[in-house]
Order: sequence, then C-alpha cells, then structure tokens
Amino acid sequence: MTVRGENLIGAQARRGTEATFRAVAAATGEPLEPDFPGASLGDLDRACALADAAFDTYREAAPEARAGFLEAIAANLLDIGDDLLTRCMAETGLPRPRIEGECARTVGQLRLFAGVVREGSAVGVRIDPALPDRKPLPRPDLRLRRIAVGPVAVFGASNFPLAFSVAGGDTASALAAGCPVVVKAHPAHPGTSELVGRAIQRAVSSCGLPEGTFSLLFDAGQSIGRALVADPRICAVGFTGSRRGGTALMDIAARRPRPIPVYAEMSSINPVLLFPGALAARGAAIGRAFAASLTLGAGQFCTNPGLILAQPGAGLDAFVAAATAALRESPASTMLTPGIHRAYREGVARLAGHASVTRLVEGPEGTATQGRAALFATEADSFLAEPELQEEMFGAAALVVRCPDFAAIRAVLEHLEGQLTASLHIAPEDHAALRTLLPLLERRVGRILVDGFGTGVEVAHAMVHGGPYPATSDGRTTSVGSLAIERFLRPVSYQDVPETLLPAVLQADNPLGLPRRIDGILERG
Amino acid sequence: MTVRGENLIGAQARRGTEATFRAVAAATGEPLEPDFPGASLGDLDRACALADAAFDTYREAAPEARAGFLEAIAANLLDIGDDLLTRCMAETGLPRPRIEGECARTVGQLRLFAGVVREGSAVGVRIDPALPDRKPLPRPDLRLRRIAVGPVAVFGASNFPLAFSVAGGDTASALAAGCPVVVKAHPAHPGTSELVGRAIQRAVSSCGLPEGTFSLLFDAGQSIGRALVADPRICAVGFTGSRRGGTALMDIAARRPRPIPVYAEMSSINPVLLFPGALAARGAAIGRAFAASLTLGAGQFCTNPGLILAQPGAGLDAFVAAATAALRESPASTMLTPGIHRAYREGVARLAGHASVTRLVEGPEGTATQGRAALFATEADSFLAEPELQEEMFGAAALVVRCPDFAAIRAVLEHLEGQLTASLHIAPEDHAALRTLLPLLERRVGRILVDGFGTGVEVAHAMVHGGPYPATSDGRTTSVGSLAIERFLRPVSYQDVPETLLPAVLQADNPLGLPRRIDGILERG
Repeated sequence: MTVRGENLIGAQARRGTEATFRAVAAATGEPLEPDFPGASLGDLDRACALADAAFDTYREAAPEARAGFLEAIAANLLDIGDDLLTRCMAETGLPRPRIEGECARTVGQLRLFAGVVREGSAVGVRIDPALPDRKPLPRPDLRLRRIAVGPVAVFGASNFPLAFSVAGGDTASALAAGCPVVVKAHPAHPGTSELVGRAIQRAVSSCGLPEGTFSLLFDAGQSIGRALVADPRICAVGFTGSRRGGTALMDIAARRPRPIPVYAEMSSINPVLLFPGALAARGAAIGRAFAASLTLGAGQFCTNPGLILAQPGAGLDAFVAAATAALRESPASTMLTPGIHRAYREGVARLAGHASVTRLVEGPEGTATQGRAALFATEADSFLAEPELQEEMFGAAALVVRCPDFAAIRAVLEHLEGQLTASLHIAPEDHAALRTLLPLLERRVGRILVDGFGTGVEVAHAMVHGGPYPATSDGRTTSVGSLAIERFLRPVSYQDVPETLLPAVLQADNPLGLPRRIDGILERG
Repeated sequence: MTVRGENLIGAQARRGTEATFRAVAAATGEPLEPDFPGASLGDLDRACALADAAFDTYREAAPEARAGFLEAIAANLLDIGDDLLTRCMAETGLPRPRIEGECARTVGQLRLFAGVVREGSAVGVRIDPALPDRKPLPRPDLRLRRIAVGPVAVFGASNFPLAFSVAGGDTASALAAGCPVVVKAHPAHPGTSELVGRAIQRAVSSCGLPEGTFSLLFDAGQSIGRALVADPRICAVGFTGSRRGGTALMDIAARRPRPIPVYAEMSSINPVLLFPGALAARGAAIGRAFAASLTLGAGQFCTNPGLILAQPGAGLDAFVAAATAALRESPASTMLTPGIHRAYREGVARLAGHASVTRLVEGPEGTATQGRAALFATEADSFLAEPELQEEMFGAAALVVRCPDFAAIRAVLEHLEGQLTASLHIAPEDHAALRTLLPLLERRVGRILVDGFGTGVEVAHAMVHGGPYPATSDGRTTSVGSLAIERFLRPVSYQDVPETLLPAVLQADNPLGLPRRIDGILERG
C-alpha cells in the first residue's frame, strides 16, 4: 500500500496546499518520501463541516452498526500488513516486535470498544416512570440517556504511532461514543498515519456511514491544530503529548466563545517507592527489573519510572548496584524524532550539571539519533527545594531520591505534582507503613501498582491511565481502557415524550436489551 | 433558633472581622438583624485547611456512615421548624407554601443521596482478575473504584435559598461523593444560610465526622468567593447564578497552577415550541398554562419559559390572547433582592424599547420591590439578526418569536445558545415535524419535555438539569438528580495490590455488597 502524502477529508483524499514536510527516518535522520503538503484552513473547514453533518446520523447508528464499524477498522488495519509495519518502523525507529505488539494492541482496543458499544452500559439509560397519583404533585415520566458530545478533535501521539494515534485509544473511544473524529496527524509518523487513516476511511465507506465520520489532516506546523481546537463545530479534544502542547490546547479551548473539554495526557515522572522490607529481601532483583522498565522503548513512555524514592542502606545500595550494572550495558536506543532526542540529551545534561545531583551511570554511547540510559541521585532536601528536579525527562533517565526516613518519603510525595502512576515495591513487613501512605497516593496518582512498574498499560475495564493535573488536564477520566468512552458522552433527559418519539434505547420494552436503571434500581439488559 | 451573624468554621462559630452586611427584607427593602461581619482570609484559610484535613477520613467513612450523615442533616433541617421558614420568607419574599415545598424538596434531596450512597453504583467498582497464564504476557490484577475529588466549594443560589443553597443539591451531592464542603453563603439570605449551616454543623458533630467536613463563610463582597476558588486545597466548584458570576469563577479556576472543574449553572431562556396541531387543538389552554409557569415564583427560575416559538395563525392568536389575559391579571410579585428587581426592570425596559419588539402585555403595577409579568413579541428575522434578544431576563418576562414557517423555527433553534430545557407542545399530527427537530434539540438542551413547562424540576434519577454552554459551564453533567454525584468523583486503579491493603469496596468477597463490573460484566450487588 502506497503512502501518497494526502489529507483524508471525508471520502476524499486531497493533497494539501500549504507548507510541505516529510517524515524523517528515526534511525538515520534522513527524510523519507513522499512530501506531505499541509492541509489548508479550507480543508479543515471542510473536514469539520462534514463531521458536523455526519454527527446526527452517526451517533444514532444502531449499536451493532457502530460496533461493526470499529471491528471493520481493526480488520482493515490488519489487512495492511507489512507495509504498515515497515513504514512505522522507519518513521519511529521502534523495533518490529514492538510495532507488531502495538498493532495487536490497537486492534484489541478497537474490538474492546466494539464490545462496550454492544453491551450498552455507557448509554446510561435511566427511567423514572410517571407517578400520576403522587401527592402533592404527580411525577412526570422521565427517561435519560447519554448521547455523543459532538465531533471530536484527536491529536496523534509521537510515542504510540498506532495505539495512541490515528486509530488509537482516543479515536476508538470517541467513535464508540458516537462522535465523528477529525485527526490532526503527528508529523513524526505521517506515512503511518495516512495508511491507518485510509483503513478507517475504507471502513466508513464499507459500513455505509456518513463520510464525515472520519477525516485526517496533516500540517508541518501548528496552525491547523490550533484552528481545529478553535473550530465551533468541534466539541471535545483528545491529546497525548507534552505539557506545553497540552496546556496550549487547554488555553485555546477555554477561550472559545463556547469552551469545550480537553482530555490531554501530558507528563508524569511516575514515582517508584522502594520499601525497606522489599529492598532487604530483593534489592538487586528490583534494580534489574527497574532498569528493564526504564529502558523499554528508549524510555519513551508516559509511565516511565522516572523517580525512585527510598531510604539509604544496604538494600538501596544493592538496588543501585544492580540497576547501574544493567544500565551500563543497556545499549543506546534510537529515539522517535531528532527533536525528542535533542530534548532528552539536554535534560540529561541539565541534570548532570545540577549542583545537587550525582550521576550514577550512563549507558553506552550510541549513534547520533540514539538516547543513552542515565541514572542520577539526589537527596530529599534538594528535591524538595528545587522544583526543576521533578520535571519530566522524556527518555530512559531517572532520579533516585535518597530519603533519610519515612517522613521524608511522605514529604516528597506531598510535594509531587499529579502523576499517572505510583509503583510500590513491598514485602509483608512493609504493609503497615504503606497503609499510611495510600490515602496520599490516591490523591496524587491515577494508578497504584505493587511490585511492578507502570510501563505496559493493560487495555482493560479496570484500567486508569489518567491522574491529577498535570499528569492529565482532567483527572476525572482515563484515556486507556473501556472507561475512556465516558469522556465523549453527555446526558439528555426526556420528560413525558411519547413512546413513538423516543429513541429506541429509551423505549419501555427495551428493544436493544440495554442495561437500565429503573426508578433507581439497576436491572440487567 | 437565633441567627447570630457568625461564620461556621469546622466545629466553631466565629464572628467575622471584615466588612459587615445585613440581609434585606425582600418585601420592604428594610435591613434585617443581625449584622454579618464578613469572613477574613484567615477564616477562609482555616476552613480550607480543616476541609483538607477531613478529606481522607470523610471520604473513607463507610457508606452507611455517610448516608446516615445526610439523613441527620435532613432531620436537623426539619427540626429548625418555623424559625427557618420565617427567616427565609423575610429574606427572600417567597411565600410560605413555596418555602415549605422547597424545604421538603431539600430534605428529599438529602435522603435521595443517602440512598445513592447506600446503593453504591456511583463507586463504579470494576475488577479485572489476573490472568497469570495469558500469552504473550500475563494480565495483572486490576481493580478500579471512584473516589471523591477533594474539598468542594459551593456557592449558594439566590433563587433557591434552601434547595440550591447551603444544604442544597451541590452540597448534598458533594457530601454524598465523599467531599468536604466549604460554602460561600449567598448574601441575599444569610440568616437562612446560617440556620441551615448550623443544622449541618450539628450533624457533623453528632455523626462523629471530622469537623472540617463542612464550613460556611459570609462575605459582603466577592473577595472570599474568589479566594475560595483559587485556594489550592479546593478541588471542584459548584455554582448556580448569573452568567457573569459563573464565567468569572471559570476564569479563576482555569488560571490556577492546578486548574479545577467548575460546575456552574448559569443562564437559559428555555425555548417553548408550539406546534400547529397543538395550537389548533388547545392554543388558549396552553396560553393559560404558560402564564402560570411564567409567573411562578416571580419567574425567578433557571427553567423559566422565556422564549416562545410558533407559526402565526388562529392557534397562536388564541395562545397569545389567553396568555395576555392571564398575565394582565397576574399580580406583581416580590422579587428576591433589590438588585434582581432592578436588573429585571431594566431588562424589561430595554426589550420594550427595542425597535423590533412589540409589547403584548404587562401585568399590574406592584410595590417598589415587586416585578410585573411581561410578554413581548418579535419576528424570527429580527431574533436571528439581533443577538441581544436571546439574553436571559431573570423574572416573569418572555418573548414570542413569530416564525413564518417551520424552517424559521429550525433556524431560530440553530441560532440559540445552549439551554437547560426545551418544551414542546404537540398533537399527534405534529409528531412527524417534531421528529425532524429532535436531533437538533438534543444538541442544544439538557432536557426535552412534551406538553409541559420546564419549571418544577423533579429530583429524580433520570433528571438532567444541565445543558450545553452557557446554560452550564459543563454540559456533561447535571446539578439536579442522583446523577449529580458523578461531578465529584474520579477513578483510581489498583494493580496487583494485596487484598489486605485494598479498600473494602474492592475486596474480592465484596463485603459492602456493591454493584460491580467483573471482567466487564455487570453483576448486581
């Protein structure tokens, strides 16, 4: 399948007319064919107009039709086969097994949401039957369902070119909710984006859905992204990327005449707490597992373990010795883009030159596009005094904060901004201490995990990939897992509406067999 | 029970030290005893510190304890008896039956949320059991619950001195979610606020909850309200009031270092669509019912029917004649405050002087504090051309927009900002036409109702009192009904956390008997 450098606007493929860019081979820094001329504001207008026109039809498509559409996208993605994997590897520098795994994850995600659509709980049906004889006043017939919020703008992420990009979690959950989607492609993997976009475009067509259900726009700069968030027809935004990028979109969204929600997953350093019992029992083993998690995918995960908190002692020494030994031999890895590589190197250099920070190890040198793993150490007092030490370094670098006592660990956690995850390594004798920290952890993070690391985010019903600001713009939600659909729904109530005018999901005989809450009591579908 | 003019800060009652104000008797404009010296920033700091300190204990109180607390508040409210009704009548000018009804509604609301807490669906428990043998990778044990977002700031509404004020819907839903509440009292009914606040304070004490679970602050101006929304310990805001007030709070919340959600219910003119069949069959009867809804409570409802859309003809003439006749004899009513009365008079005068608007009727003159009902008419073209015609007039005034055809009705609806409600008066022959409008109505409003008016908002499970901006700041929610609890919850996921460390609601044997979703499948508690 050929990459043509075309925007996908509804059913059309149109070459843009604005400034041109190309993908860059992550491993070599060389540009890749073809040119991608950027979309014009006219292209954007057309994509948004089509999305708006598609909205009422698409959101009311039967659950089976919407589920089938998500499954058709999944099948079309698999059909692209090696062309997709090859292009994606070239653009991102990620190795084949990772891309294969991510493709499987993306397909699984689409199928998960197909299941969510069929099951129907997300519609949130509630019926309070009329009570005509109630005193002092009768009660009207009230029925509630949730409907899609409207067309959604999705910004692809650089570090998940499939699972959090054109057909990734934001798109899948928005489509599942009934929202048309306009994707602004990430410029780091435009060829991958186009191939995936065409897979969605074909599914829209084969499923007989309105063409505006999906569009994909390219842009060498930021003007299309900004205009997309400002467009009056766009009703919500999904974004995964930097804090600067996310907060810029939040500002645009808040300043619109009609503000809209932005679901931005932004930055996190994911504290790892090593408890004394665990360190004493298996400090070295934890150190090796940590090094493996830190260097996975060149450390380019939002859930990368960037901060280690522990009390000094033989256990921490064993952890550091094992981690250091492993990282010293961990080969440098190609990073996603030259810009990410540069930012990573600068962040590492800044930390290495910081007066309060000691360098424990750096991994072997690599090529000009590869990032080296790095581990640093500091003291709790310094970490508390110097806010720059909790800035995310996107890549395989972490900071060990030596905490003289348990109170210092608590103080560091209190001082932390909101995070996606906290990892706790514990032994049975640590339970009592951990118990006292759990309330604080619940306030600071979206996911608490024991004896593991945050990398490897399971796509599941009980997953939260979210967290208090600035981990995300909106800690009331998740961007991974089936609960992500909730971001794109809003409730509408129908009072005394005749049965024949009600949407099928609210009709008394429940023709679609949805789970419902009748007079407050949950019944199964 | 005596009103003392004291802030309630945790378990204490403290006279403020800032500028003093008094309540004003709505009917006479005379000040009422006692003085209310405003809270200082130190008082605010103490209230927020106590709320923050109470949070972890209060949110983890057993469902039965939290439900019992809500019921204790309800019982304490009823215990105040006539002192509350008398003070509330004096401060608001609302008649006794209305205050009695509102008190019953407030009590019912608290009890509804007690039921919601006991039933437990809002916790949203999800468990995905571990799959240790899954290939290529095992699945961890994942469990999700929703926890309270943190301390909530609530701003009492002028027009519901009980049901949307100190112990009203925002407070009840936040407390049900597990959030401590700091209320900024509305200065129009400080005595009512203090009496109700003391009822909550007594319930906190008798239920053995941490004192910071509730505080109440008075202020003659806006500095305490602004500082409250900006306070870093406050995690969400509930507000009912003007668009100017609501957007001011949204701005403060968005500019914090850590932005927080604001749930502001702001303004709505609640379109009423009169379909031809209904007008032909019962135009006069609808006109009389409309006049009754318009003048209820001096028109001081967010759901007041402020806009009538219909095609000219004998049916509309009959509607207008009947409405006009009823309004001409509808006595003027005392408005809530001199400021509201002034704003209403000015709004009516502005409309009366508008070149494109005809005055159909004004009700009889009243006293200097009473608002007269008023009905105006204009043409669809003018309404579409002049945005000021869709500004809310808070009071018993409405505008009839004559629409030459059905397309004009659609155009006016397209042109409308977001609304709380749309009321549709129909006969069977109108169904086909209405069906084509429903998708548009669903996009514009939170509640669609047939053959009635939006006033009289049922507190129920299937109610939505919300709507797209600017009806509310966040159309994904409701501020009335049991679904309102969702505003104050956020999900947290627990991965491989040992059973003994998990909160009770997530333990495998479900000791609290909550509804849960296991591996995506809903089971009853």
